[in-house]
Amino acid sequence: MSAKNLVAGVDVGGTNIEVGLVDSHHRVVDRAKANTPTEGPDAVLSTIAELVSSFDADPWAVGVGIPGVVHEGDVLTVPNLSNWHDKVEIGDELGKALGIPVALGNDANVGLLGEWLAGAADGADNVLGLWMGTGIGGALIIDGEPFNGSRGAAGEIGHVVVQERGALCGCGRRGCVEAYAGRRSMETAAADMVEAGRTTSLFDIRDELGKTKITSKVWKKALDSGDELAVSLFDTAIDALGVAIGSTLNVLDLDLVVVGGGLAEKLGQDLADRIETATAPWVLQPNPDRRFVVSALGDDAGIVGAASLGRKLL
Amino acid sequence: MSAKNLVAGVDVGGTNIEVGLVDSHHRVVDRAKANTPTEGPDAVLSTIAELVSSFDADPWAVGVGIPGVVHEGDVLTVPNLSNWHDKVEIGDELGKALGIPVALGNDANVGLLGEWLAGAADGADNVLGLWMGTGIGGALIIDGEPFNGSRGAAGEIGHVVVQERGALCGCGRRGCVEAYAGRRSMETAAADMVEAGRTTSLFDIRDELGKTKITSKVWKKALDSGDELAVSLFDTAIDALGVAIGSTLNVLDLDLVVVGGGLAEKLGQDLADRIETATAPWVLQPNPDRRFVVSALGDDAGIVGAASLGRKLL
Repeated sequence: MSAKNLVAGVDVGGTNIEVGLVDSHHRVVDRAKANTPTEGPDAVLSTIAELVSSFDADPWAVGVGIPGVVHEGDVLTVPNLSNWHDKVEIGDELGKALGIPVALGNDANVGLLGEWLAGAADGADNVLGLWMGTGIGGALIIDGEPFNGSRGAAGEIGHVVVQERGALCGCGRRGCVEAYAGRRSMETAAADMVEAGRTTSLFDIRDELGKTKITSKVWKKALDSGDELAVSLFDTAIDALGVAIGSTLNVLDLDLVVVGGGLAEKLGQDLADRIETATAPWVLQPNPDRRFVVSALGDDAGIVGAASLGRKLL
Repeated sequence: MSAKNLVAGVDVGGTNIEVGLVDSHHRVVDRAKANTPTEGPDAVLSTIAELVSSFDADPWAVGVGIPGVVHEGDVLTVPNLSNWHDKVEIGDELGKALGIPVALGNDANVGLLGEWLAGAADGADNVLGLWMGTGIGGALIIDGEPFNGSRGAAGEIGHVVVQERGALCGCGRRGCVEAYAGRRSMETAAADMVEAGRTTSLFDIRDELGKTKITSKVWKKALDSGDELAVSLFDTAIDALGVAIGSTLNVLDLDLVVVGGGLAEKLGQDLADRIETATAPWVLQPNPDRRFVVSALGDDAGIVGAASLGRKLL
């Protein structure tokens, strides 16, 4: 069976590849999921092709969100997937494997696109999408259109500097907001503090939950229990986000900030409220209509947004 | 005599009001200038009206660039002019006085508009205008259109924070790039350092030139002479600008930065080159096509851009 109105949306993450079959009302009507292979692009492409082919209905196109810089149909860089090299022509190769049109986008950009088409950013003109997970991702809607920048690299709010010569970031620079508010950086900071003699329940909770990393769920439990070190690290993260978003609003005068990603799913609107409060002191020109809201679609945002890119090819 | 193709462009600055008669090729064919009155909006409006009426040819419309937030034809705030209060309806009042249509814009925005229509940003799609004067102003072209933000307040790159809990800024916050790179802040820092026992030729040069402030010309002379304190303050300014522009490029992935304002006029392309060098280490995704150039129109950028707003009313 094939259905003209169904398009597959693929969200390629560092841990999982999630695929959804999406109808013309941006509803996810079926889904499939697999671990992200670590052997490199060929294995990732095969996995995507298998997942897309696994549905009862055949989609007419597929859209793929990739954690990398996408420009003019090419993937320029993919920093967070194993064994990837620059400029893999995913579109062409996947198109051959599946026999349907393929569209590509950056994962943060398609996530905001999903929220903008069918979620928390519905119809807004000037929006920042802030994705809080392993790192800090971002995306923009400007003047009522998704904005990807001159070469597809816009939206990297994680690498807005809040403190020159500050904490070391995963990108090799210092003082980026991701160095304070990215889950990977916060975990490193917690481990360093424990090494230096401080105590925290973060690693015990991680072990109890059978995780290998301090996941968003671990953070939620530690914060709820009032763990002092967790609370202090998280306060620092929120504080840094306030500075970075304040700077961004001074440059862009946006009317909406959508907070998504793993931490937003676990902490909910309270996270968006805390970020709003931390941002306010840094904003030059207050805007009474500006809102900070948590993602409405959660994990589906990327699937819905990616599918919408595929739908444009029909 | 009146000529259909002539529009007046008005650049209202903290010190002077400059008016030009601009033709349809964005050429300034006549000009007039007066000190900016300090008594408040009525006096400023009278001065604008007098200057616009002083030409041999009558313009058919007038565009005015104001150092404040302009939104939907109203001036929301004017922080740098004396005795101004919020929400003066300049457009209506000036229209009545002159009997021609009046358009309003923010001074930084109309400056970049001038450069974009007829100067250094000619035709570029994604541009930051950086104006270095008493403060640090900014403006944006996004996806081939001037972008003013949701409420006319976009472009305030001067209030991108480079150092949380850093130097005190004129806006009352800490760590804004303007606190390091704005001429007023640099003068305050120099005075504080002299107070603390350091020496510099900056104030002597100021007096020799008969100025009351450390103007761009004074900076140029002190830097050229190798004045140690001036060089050190200016290095700090360039360094801070590198961080702020790097953060901005990570969010917006622009392809052009135009550097204008008093300091750019005195220091020329060398200033743009120094800022480019200071920005490079902070940029996540290098763009080989990205350029940093000095303003081509100088003081005329604001006049030409303001006139173009007026021309739209014809």
